[in-house]
Amino acid sequence: MPPRTRKLFPTPDDAETAFYEAFERADLAAMMVVWAEGEDVVCVHPSGPRLTGFEAVRESWMQIFTSNVKLNVRVSEASRFDGPSVAVRSVVEAITAPGTESSPQFVNATNVYVLTDSGWRIAVHHASPPEQAAPPEEDEAAQLHTLH
Amino acid sequence: MPPRTRKLFPTPDDAETAFYEAFERADLAAMMVVWAEGEDVVCVHPSGPRLTGFEAVRESWMQIFTSNVKLNVRVSEASRFDGPSVAVRSVVEAITAPGTESSPQFVNATNVYVLTDSGWRIAVHHASPPEQAAPPEEDEAAQLHTLH
Repeated sequence: MPPRTRKLFPTPDDAETAFYEAFERADLAAMMVVWAEGEDVVCVHPSGPRLTGFEAVRESWMQIFTSNVKLNVRVSEASRFDGPSVAVRSVVEAITAPGTESSPQFVNATNVYVLTDSGWRIAVHHASPPEQAAPPEEDEAAQLHTLH
Repeated sequence: MPPRTRKLFPTPDDAETAFYEAFERADLAAMMVVWAEGEDVVCVHPSGPRLTGFEAVRESWMQIFTSNVKLNVRVSEASRFDGPSVAVRSVVEAITAPGTESSPQFVNATNVYVLTDSGWRIAVHHASPPEQAAPPEEDEAAQLHTLH
């Protein structure tokens, strides 16, 4: 494996900008430079499983980037919680495929950034689709929706 | 409105324990003591909308607690990111209704705690159901699932 590029992100916002730029460019190397290393990083793609550890997260982005078109991602409605070593952004992603006229897909995301020896990196990306009408036949899912 | 109880949570873990105890007891007052005040707190219930602000969050828990039975919540698989003023727990919740023999419903949750003048409080609770098979007719949702 080639040595990892040591690109510094001086602030959580710099890391977040780099995260979404890599996402839009479908650039796996750039994406993984933004991620913190280690076994405790967590990534939940919309309606996806909870992935833990750098390698599982890398594999998931590789699958996303190799199988699909590049997307436009507009980020808005951020709530920000900033500490000296841990920072959080709660955002809404509006995702569209270029060249299509369909409405954007909205995704709720919670992004956690941590200060490492090489700058701020993302340690948690938790994304989920917003409210959906539960199909009538899925009683159990509908119940959970109501319960919590 | 009566004066708010000032119950201190000396650590993020104390706040998290109080959060899930209030959840299991369906105790709205105890739940809202754990939440930070203000307009930037965020709560996403599974498959629900992104709620922002203390009052919207309070309203959602009131609806959950008044309309349903009490639940058992077992929390596991935590990734922890601790700073002096912001802390994060990424957990899996296993939710069961007492007296039933059904399997637990699993929920991925990202919880953000902030240090306030009156101790640690929860500022973000982002919960989402884990991987679900997309119904064949929901092409758009299935596409988003694959894309991100």
